[in-house]
Amino acid sequence: MVNAKLICIGDELLIGQTINTNAAWMGSELNQHGIRVAESIAIADQPAAILSALENALEEVSIILITGGLGPTKDDLTKHTLAAFFNQELVINDEVMARNRAYFESRGLPFLETNEKQAELPSGCRVIHNMRGTASGMRFEWRGKVVVSMPGVPYEMQGMMTDEIIPSLCQYFKCPRIVHRTILTTGVGESFLADRIAAWEESLQKDSIHLAYLPSPGMVKLRMSVYGGSDAQLEAMRQRELELLGLLGDTVYGFDEDTLITVVAKRLKELGATLSVAESCTGGRISHELTSVAGSSAYFLGGVVTYHEQLKSNLLDVDPQLIAEHGVVSREVAAAMAEGVRKTCRSDYALSVTGVAGPDALEGKPVGYIWIGLSTPDRTFAQDFQFGRSRQNNISMATWAALNLLRKEIL
Amino acid sequence: MVNAKLICIGDELLIGQTINTNAAWMGSELNQHGIRVAESIAIADQPAAILSALENALEEVSIILITGGLGPTKDDLTKHTLAAFFNQELVINDEVMARNRAYFESRGLPFLETNEKQAELPSGCRVIHNMRGTASGMRFEWRGKVVVSMPGVPYEMQGMMTDEIIPSLCQYFKCPRIVHRTILTTGVGESFLADRIAAWEESLQKDSIHLAYLPSPGMVKLRMSVYGGSDAQLEAMRQRELELLGLLGDTVYGFDEDTLITVVAKRLKELGATLSVAESCTGGRISHELTSVAGSSAYFLGGVVTYHEQLKSNLLDVDPQLIAEHGVVSREVAAAMAEGVRKTCRSDYALSVTGVAGPDALEGKPVGYIWIGLSTPDRTFAQDFQFGRSRQNNISMATWAALNLLRKEIL
Repeated sequence: MVNAKLICIGDELLIGQTINTNAAWMGSELNQHGIRVAESIAIADQPAAILSALENALEEVSIILITGGLGPTKDDLTKHTLAAFFNQELVINDEVMARNRAYFESRGLPFLETNEKQAELPSGCRVIHNMRGTASGMRFEWRGKVVVSMPGVPYEMQGMMTDEIIPSLCQYFKCPRIVHRTILTTGVGESFLADRIAAWEESLQKDSIHLAYLPSPGMVKLRMSVYGGSDAQLEAMRQRELELLGLLGDTVYGFDEDTLITVVAKRLKELGATLSVAESCTGGRISHELTSVAGSSAYFLGGVVTYHEQLKSNLLDVDPQLIAEHGVVSREVAAAMAEGVRKTCRSDYALSVTGVAGPDALEGKPVGYIWIGLSTPDRTFAQDFQFGRSRQNNISMATWAALNLLRKEIL
Repeated sequence: MVNAKLICIGDELLIGQTINTNAAWMGSELNQHGIRVAESIAIADQPAAILSALENALEEVSIILITGGLGPTKDDLTKHTLAAFFNQELVINDEVMARNRAYFESRGLPFLETNEKQAELPSGCRVIHNMRGTASGMRFEWRGKVVVSMPGVPYEMQGMMTDEIIPSLCQYFKCPRIVHRTILTTGVGESFLADRIAAWEESLQKDSIHLAYLPSPGMVKLRMSVYGGSDAQLEAMRQRELELLGLLGDTVYGFDEDTLITVVAKRLKELGATLSVAESCTGGRISHELTSVAGSSAYFLGGVVTYHEQLKSNLLDVDPQLIAEHGVVSREVAAAMAEGVRKTCRSDYALSVTGVAGPDALEGKPVGYIWIGLSTPDRTFAQDFQFGRSRQNNISMATWAALNLLRKEIL
């Protein structure tokens, strides 16, 4: 597999003002096309830093993709540094000059000397035309390696990568195929999962299948990859997947680009069923997640956030006697909340959450102790969970646990 | 200024499955404490890659901060690689073992052999205790340089950085003082803001005050910084701040670590007043933001998410005739929602949001068109906003605009 290095130029990346989404986007695209990103680096807007990164990269990999430092003002730093390194003159590219002039004229803007300079490009590079802006890309071939420089503006860079750079790299390096399969799990921690599948994981080696664990609060993604992607390899990966599903059972909620939200949404739509939510300690997070996805109005009706105890009675008809007897964080109240919101919203399904997000304990229940209720057309029940000490994490974990409880019920 | 390099370990970063937010967070924090991030690098979960990155970094900078590769599973290799590099044995740390065992026991979970292994740490490192998870951090001193390894889980890494690593680095390297003052604004775009304060910004130079614009959806933070922090510099910065406040008026909602939530929360607590929220297109996001902050139960009672039109009438007593006449996205319905939720929840103040988050237009109203209602003990009114085309952004912008409307009313 051919190796690439990403060099992202920009002080804003180093001081954390901008999150480096370019590196993630390029990594994902290259990987899908069988080019392995061996390393990605963010460096300062300085010729010495650019030169040093370039020299190191040329010793390590075959493809070097550079973003940033091509705007018309402070920079040309990248362009001048590359021209000097490859021992080339900057010459006017007539096609770029004409297109940039037209670009400014079409917007009624003056075409300044700084803009003219953008048409000066190293004499020996292949110019990558920018259909979305005025800074051209540059492609250099050097001792069988390829160096590409692109602007840092994400959608300009993405256009160049998709239209020209990736196809030309795949052709030049005769890239093999790489195939990934990601199995998404929830409800079981990383170490338990690892323990449960230890023997299976060992068996991957003989088929040259690489496994990665990708954990986030309440979830673990397991990603299998094969390089090459022969029919035999793909068949081996399919077999391993079946074995894995057998080992993991209903902790698996989906595959690849699925999310817990999209999986639940899809199933509710299949059933033609609606959902409402009564949230106490999650404080609106479940509703927020459900409505973050376009099209949620097809199955999500809404719900209530009963942060104050009184509202559980006012809005959900939870009997105050029940709260007095069992406490707000109890099986009985979770069930009554789910039933209450289901009736009030006239939905088919209803989830409820009541618990101790933290930082303080409540009614003698520890931080992270949470009851989740589910009311369906057939039954109402509740389940308790003990999460951790972080308020933010408890809210996240309870959100995914609630949606997972619903998923298991409706699938 | 002392130089640092960030080494972020994880295949998921290179294949773009995870965006490297850790690098941005660390860059921002270090920068604020006078440590310059010279370079940030993402590498594979491989001993050779870790070793090579570490060796290069030790030639270039004084501080090396490593994240990732410390979980209990098999793709986590950082600990072994570091132990080998520094020529140290892995030995059981009794304190870590006891804490991790307690961590599992408190959750009623079995303590497995893979978990025990997490208590094995290099004999010569200073252990950085992880109060939010089970993977400990490690701090090595080597020829006057410092190498720190942390887990890749953001909130675990952030806790270690804030509690222990940054203070110890500042002390070890005698970092110069940097004083920042951040003025927080909302409701005015970055370019308008820049235009309004252009002359003021020019005047900062003579006092060697550096200014940074930090924009995010709906907000712009203006951060002034002085290096050294003499009394004269601090006095100059105070003067500039007063001038700036005069220029910006009520677009300024707070300073430094304030958020729109904490500012509103503080004022509601001062007033001894309570708040409820009725959300349509924001779908629970406002409630979620309010309850993300501990102590919100002192002023936030709860509310309703009336995603489906019917619930506006069921839960908030909005007259169906009003909806039929003016449409759900209207001044009248926003006001009725705010009034309705204020009555139902018996709160002093109530916010409401009804609008078109997108991607599709609604009732002839364009995507991004949103009404926000506010009901107070004295009056009820609503204001309309036209945001952009992105659903996610519209939800964010409407959330901050609603809280800002409340802020301006109660201050």
